[in-house]
Amino acid sequence: MKKSEYISFAFLRSALTMQNPYHSTEQVLDWIREQNRKILVNVRQVPFAQMLPTWQFDAEGNLRHTSGKFFSIEGIRVQTNYGNVAEWEQPIINQPEIGYLGIITKEMDGVLYFLLQAKVEPGNVNNVQLSPTLQATKSNYSQVHKGNKPLYLEYFQNAKPEQILLDQLQSEQGARFLRKRNRNIIIRVEEEIPVYDNFIWVTLGQIKALASMDNIVNMDTRTVISGIPLHALEGIELPEKKAWGYDLLHDAHPCHTTTEILSWMTSLKCKYELNITSIPLNQVGHWRTTDVAIEHEAGRFFKVIAAQVEINNREVKTWCQPLVAPAQQGLTAFVIKKINGTYHFLVQGKVESGNFDTLEMAPTVQCITDSYVSIRNAQPFVDYVLNAKPEQIRVDTLQSEEGGRFYQEQNRNLIIEADDSFPVDNLPENYIWVSFQQLMLFLQFNNYLNIQSRSLISLIRMI
Amino acid sequence: MKKSEYISFAFLRSALTMQNPYHSTEQVLDWIREQNRKILVNVRQVPFAQMLPTWQFDAEGNLRHTSGKFFSIEGIRVQTNYGNVAEWEQPIINQPEIGYLGIITKEMDGVLYFLLQAKVEPGNVNNVQLSPTLQATKSNYSQVHKGNKPLYLEYFQNAKPEQILLDQLQSEQGARFLRKRNRNIIIRVEEEIPVYDNFIWVTLGQIKALASMDNIVNMDTRTVISGIPLHALEGIELPEKKAWGYDLLHDAHPCHTTTEILSWMTSLKCKYELNITSIPLNQVGHWRTTDVAIEHEAGRFFKVIAAQVEINNREVKTWCQPLVAPAQQGLTAFVIKKINGTYHFLVQGKVESGNFDTLEMAPTVQCITDSYVSIRNAQPFVDYVLNAKPEQIRVDTLQSEEGGRFYQEQNRNLIIEADDSFPVDNLPENYIWVSFQQLMLFLQFNNYLNIQSRSLISLIRMI
Repeated sequence: MKKSEYISFAFLRSALTMQNPYHSTEQVLDWIREQNRKILVNVRQVPFAQMLPTWQFDAEGNLRHTSGKFFSIEGIRVQTNYGNVAEWEQPIINQPEIGYLGIITKEMDGVLYFLLQAKVEPGNVNNVQLSPTLQATKSNYSQVHKGNKPLYLEYFQNAKPEQILLDQLQSEQGARFLRKRNRNIIIRVEEEIPVYDNFIWVTLGQIKALASMDNIVNMDTRTVISGIPLHALEGIELPEKKAWGYDLLHDAHPCHTTTEILSWMTSLKCKYELNITSIPLNQVGHWRTTDVAIEHEAGRFFKVIAAQVEINNREVKTWCQPLVAPAQQGLTAFVIKKINGTYHFLVQGKVESGNFDTLEMAPTVQCITDSYVSIRNAQPFVDYVLNAKPEQIRVDTLQSEEGGRFYQEQNRNLIIEADDSFPVDNLPENYIWVSFQQLMLFLQFNNYLNIQSRSLISLIRMI
Repeated sequence: MKKSEYISFAFLRSALTMQNPYHSTEQVLDWIREQNRKILVNVRQVPFAQMLPTWQFDAEGNLRHTSGKFFSIEGIRVQTNYGNVAEWEQPIINQPEIGYLGIITKEMDGVLYFLLQAKVEPGNVNNVQLSPTLQATKSNYSQVHKGNKPLYLEYFQNAKPEQILLDQLQSEQGARFLRKRNRNIIIRVEEEIPVYDNFIWVTLGQIKALASMDNIVNMDTRTVISGIPLHALEGIELPEKKAWGYDLLHDAHPCHTTTEILSWMTSLKCKYELNITSIPLNQVGHWRTTDVAIEHEAGRFFKVIAAQVEINNREVKTWCQPLVAPAQQGLTAFVIKKINGTYHFLVQGKVESGNFDTLEMAPTVQCITDSYVSIRNAQPFVDYVLNAKPEQIRVDTLQSEEGGRFYQEQNRNLIIEADDSFPVDNLPENYIWVSFQQLMLFLQFNNYLNIQSRSLISLIRMI
């Protein structure tokens, strides 16, 4: 893939500037605060019975929307030779639709601006976060809920090939969703377009600056921008002060060729088996459904609750929906290390129950489905990243999972630069050093990098 | 991906020479003929009952090996919005194992030699074809059949990363196999290794020369060598006379960027739905199981037969197994065309029932599951390739499908250079022009190019 192919000058300038004559970054923050002030969100856990008749349990105990659309909570049996547990059963979100996560961009004065939305989601810890221009499941935009057509949908549906800057199928959380993927897409418009009340034009540099704060940029925005090929900045003179991310670009001596990394993935996919069998939710062992929750008998992992959502803005909207609430805050971390003058990410090949293709590239540490305090001895490198010295920390923020599905879930996102004590060789076999340029190559193809690794990549700043 | 990364000088020289001091190409052909003379293969269609107790029908009418291993013939219901038929049922081969298709290479005097095997398969039209060094399912090498361990297996199992030249998961026929993939792997040894009786060292140039004849190089060898990054030859001076394939290398002006091609695939994967449900084989509509065949009521597509195989070499081996016999000879063809000075392949995004990820890149024309005579008006470009003038034909050979599963199945493989009458624009939406360099990039990642397109690519000669 040639660099010139897929990144425009305006794209680069957007990544490399926080100078926005329309809204400074401080103004964007004020505007989000203002959106938050104007809105009252009330999410109340209610008995499942209160979601009737819209959401109900079928004869097998699976929780479904009456229309058969949106998503359902079902049971699966997992059999695998990966990890310490050979077989388990669990609830999982089944949403066999590919949704849009789309951002509209527009070049103004040689800089590309991204149209983001201050969007309320019932699960958000702080009401409003910066979301893509369009965030819609097929059920949404096929108008199953008889609401209005999502704003800006037609721009994506009618986009011509030359308007498309990025268009990738990317995975969602493999431990929570059954083979779910979304269409991550960025398009460019040339014409004037309406900017509705809770939408705003920002640069990519600003998005990344905002993402260095807790819970401002939502997961959907993060996964879309993670695919922007910023590795094409290699060798380009920067107009503003360089950030640490700029040092990642230099790629003279990667530890492994791309062929070796592909071979590593192939061998792991051949070694690890993952057999998923659908089972009725009411037969999932060690889980129970009460009047108010689908939960693990020991309170571990997550629970599914029924939420009554009330949003007071100019009008009052009320609805009920299931939400998945994690049992604890999670941790994801990339360890990076300069080896032979080139920065590398320590990538983990991780099997998760809902993965589309057995395993994907995950961060060095990913503990979001169970308490990392209890398993810190069981998972490699957890202690190392938790004990990193301040000067090793490149990223340390709390980032939210998608608030339309997950209730107040935030995970700690860390990027840690390894010190000399960190091993270069003799890693466990499902770990490998991958350069930034190589990671970005894999990211262009579907189902190579998992959503947690993409979230971390989205946090890398060049300025 | 840097060119220097993944192709060695010895690799190139192997592709660019038919000078083999050990065996000239004529000698290899003589050697294959000799292997054929020494062997007597007798394949007789027998009633299914004769395969008892090794192969039997279960209560649902599915045909299974008693061990539960190898493969089974099962039923599926297919629902899709692709093509003219929205729903059908069919038998399919289910073999949820990743097998090895492996070639050992060794550098001798600066040229890489490939160790191929003259292998008998019961379904072969001509007994013996040139196969990879190792061709083994997990059931084979886990010794389910209590036979001997496959020759050379340990070289692949013990290969170190630096010995691996290519290691890819690649798909099998999507209309016949349920999500089947194999590990396509080429390794390099440095030490002396035994060359057993029916094995031979040949250059890549020789393999490609032999593949320009009918049914000499088997499907497994073709898929493995298709992944060799010969596009890296761009700009390299050739030692021997150039073949037409060399003109494909020049890639100055591809019609589409890689981002555009990825976007085209993403949009098709979002548009086309493919829902596969397992059903008992005895409930598959329009198909019936008789004493001697599982067949379509109108004799279309293919049938599954029971074969008694007797191979007389130095010793006599006899066994029974199911084989899939096609209803007719098929046709696969790439149309290529020079556009803006760069050669392009007309690629089809094709949904097939057993595909791992809905659709893969297929040749311009692919009619192997039904008679192309009857559907030539239904499928685009069939007439065009069948009426090509002699000077447009770059490849025209009969190539066999895998003889371990398919009974005497050979398909016509065509590469046709389009003349001026062929349209550049206004193609059906699931067709796109892709340059050779771009095709080879996609081929490195799993489940982008289907096996028929890889077979055609393997036939491209540089000298």
